[in-house]
Amino acid sequence: MYIGSAQGFRLERENEYGTPEQNETVREIVEAVRREGDAALLRYTERLDKVKLRPEELRVTREEIEAAYDKVEPDFLAALRQAAANVTAFHEKQKRTSWMDSKPDGTVLGMVVRPLKRVGLYVPGGKAAYPSSVLMNVLPAKVAGVPEIVLVTPPSTGGREGIDPYILVAAAESGVTEMYRIGGAQAIAALAYGTESIPAVDKVCGPGNIYVALAKRAVFGAVDIDSIAGPTEIVVLAEDCADPRYVAADMLSQAEHDEMASAVLVTTSEELAKAVEAELERQVATLPRREIAEASLRQYGAILTVADMSEGLAVVNKLAPEHLEVIANNPMELIGGIENAGAIFVGPYSPEPVGDYYAGPNHILPTNGTARFSSPLNVDDFLKKSSLIRYSREALHRDAAGIATLARHEGLEAHARAVEIRLEGGEAK
Amino acid sequence: MYIGSAQGFRLERENEYGTPEQNETVREIVEAVRREGDAALLRYTERLDKVKLRPEELRVTREEIEAAYDKVEPDFLAALRQAAANVTAFHEKQKRTSWMDSKPDGTVLGMVVRPLKRVGLYVPGGKAAYPSSVLMNVLPAKVAGVPEIVLVTPPSTGGREGIDPYILVAAAESGVTEMYRIGGAQAIAALAYGTESIPAVDKVCGPGNIYVALAKRAVFGAVDIDSIAGPTEIVVLAEDCADPRYVAADMLSQAEHDEMASAVLVTTSEELAKAVEAELERQVATLPRREIAEASLRQYGAILTVADMSEGLAVVNKLAPEHLEVIANNPMELIGGIENAGAIFVGPYSPEPVGDYYAGPNHILPTNGTARFSSPLNVDDFLKKSSLIRYSREALHRDAAGIATLARHEGLEAHARAVEIRLEGGEAK
Repeated sequence: MYIGSAQGFRLERENEYGTPEQNETVREIVEAVRREGDAALLRYTERLDKVKLRPEELRVTREEIEAAYDKVEPDFLAALRQAAANVTAFHEKQKRTSWMDSKPDGTVLGMVVRPLKRVGLYVPGGKAAYPSSVLMNVLPAKVAGVPEIVLVTPPSTGGREGIDPYILVAAAESGVTEMYRIGGAQAIAALAYGTESIPAVDKVCGPGNIYVALAKRAVFGAVDIDSIAGPTEIVVLAEDCADPRYVAADMLSQAEHDEMASAVLVTTSEELAKAVEAELERQVATLPRREIAEASLRQYGAILTVADMSEGLAVVNKLAPEHLEVIANNPMELIGGIENAGAIFVGPYSPEPVGDYYAGPNHILPTNGTARFSSPLNVDDFLKKSSLIRYSREALHRDAAGIATLARHEGLEAHARAVEIRLEGGEAK
Repeated sequence: MYIGSAQGFRLERENEYGTPEQNETVREIVEAVRREGDAALLRYTERLDKVKLRPEELRVTREEIEAAYDKVEPDFLAALRQAAANVTAFHEKQKRTSWMDSKPDGTVLGMVVRPLKRVGLYVPGGKAAYPSSVLMNVLPAKVAGVPEIVLVTPPSTGGREGIDPYILVAAAESGVTEMYRIGGAQAIAALAYGTESIPAVDKVCGPGNIYVALAKRAVFGAVDIDSIAGPTEIVVLAEDCADPRYVAADMLSQAEHDEMASAVLVTTSEELAKAVEAELERQVATLPRREIAEASLRQYGAILTVADMSEGLAVVNKLAPEHLEVIANNPMELIGGIENAGAIFVGPYSPEPVGDYYAGPNHILPTNGTARFSSPLNVDDFLKKSSLIRYSREALHRDAAGIATLARHEGLEAHARAVEIRLEGGEAK
């Protein structure tokens, strides 16, 4: 862990682009599924997931979903439903509507806003299958009005008996309309290009291993994809008023995710810096994921002291963290100075897990410094816009000379003529 | 050109991913500029653009911009200014503001919306340098509030004497804050990673040749990029009321762009189909870019007849065209049925060049079927959002059990503890 002045610290973690072999494997799988459809999809599922399926077994049945409800605990279901209600309410505020603007000259200009028609969500298998991420991915699409939301997850998820029931329940609760037991690059290719059993989608979302990430890059263009998530990170910007127990607990809640995660304290208080260092050591000792958290702190953890909050904000803006906590005497005063952060948690009662699970804002956030230019997953990500232009005869006559001047300057004579041909004949036929 | 029923027609044009050699060349250039900064940038500018520059000569001077104003015609400048005013007015309507929502329990949730800080625009050299595209790229960033807008264009643009004055004037009028005479993959790398002379940007926009497109793909992640434009296309959806001269002129205004462009008529009227075919032949004969337009029509042009407008809309939605014209008896009645189109031009007085140059909506639109999931360039593309979460002590106590339940289910004990540690001590220190 780096401890010291902010000047000396630089957080650098490379994005994963895969080895040439991994890229070649993914290219082969994607091409095969694109060309052969179900046949290749089932072949790779047997080879890689060790599960032999017939086409009619790909889709998860209504009975399986109903059975899943019997397997989850009532307190889990209650918490999940409350989280879903909060996430839905927050994302409802992001909705946009079409608009049109009519002018006195008869011109109408506008923007037609529509949901995507069909979206696919990848849910990884095993321990990385998080019900909370199902909510966070599906509910913005649902609020946007996407009518077809498809979930895919490897058939091995949750062992031989089938798909993890918690995932099935989270999917059903959040409004998934179809689920398929497929995984890996072959699942991404099936979503992007479609097969006999699985119609193609317009956008593929969700996290996965390196093969899934490379497959998403490979199909981008044929479909839209969400961002490719990097390792997670938190920065706590704190003054002397902060409780070091809280700060350390919050740093550890990020560090336990994985060894690549980064937890950084930026503070004006030497005393707080020392106290947090001690608290980290004390609290990490009893964590089930102690080894992961320790490795994360060792490699990517830092306690940085700054002269004042203005320097603190500069450090934060340079790091552009996924999660930022602000625990200060007047935290809301500092918001205007925060240029780059995925989510901002304000004050002593807003630990990051509040946002991960419950409050309502999305937990799928820009990582690895990309908060400089990107945003939390939101309803806009599942909407598309079309501009609308209706010119009147009057407006076209008024603007024809200007349009023709610009078109001819660019050497596009047919553009100028498409306007001028309408001036000759008076009213259109 | 394909002429016949819509069922038999399929428009397929591959996206450009470059040859392995081109990809390797781009990788080398990008890495060199990333590592060596100005030295590599100047070396490749000399090697590829045949212009030897010193670092202090990279930036376009105020004097050059002033001199450019003396070189452009008054009617060009007047038309450009009117277009800029219209584009600004339309994009002003897309602006978004931050919002916060305070609840009775003391919780505040919100979304902070901010402009990107620094954006780079690539303008290709030679004949592909379009002043109208400078407006369409820069003005949405300007309206979004981006404080630093950087334009780069090859030093060879406009011949040995310097940069095309029309580009300089368009840049100055639309609010570009810095301009550099660099081009190719080396310019994209300089924008993405920064050099001694050119600070790094947060997003790179604008069209270019295959090397520029591959460089944009290569730097994506370090910075944001806009979409990579494919060949342009138009679909005219028309009933018997349409004037065949107008329809043909509009198809040609797209076909003249390049040989890969596509112009398609979808109509319920056999009579119109025949008349447009004859008009195309007549009108193309006198075009300066006749050979390009003819090649485009031959390879990617089509006249498709459909049984009714409902089938017509289905064909349109499948093609998901960049530009769609609707010339029908009651065109506004059809808007609700259009699912996929970049821009929709309604009625007989809305030829596509109206939107290319003047009306106000953006002319940078999703191509090659991507209107299924993407949108015209707009103000949102230059904004980023941060969620804001301020929980109260009361809200945290109320929600703690639910949050801890979900966190522990996912095996993330430190997440649960970060919440629970705040319950023990009463008020925070």
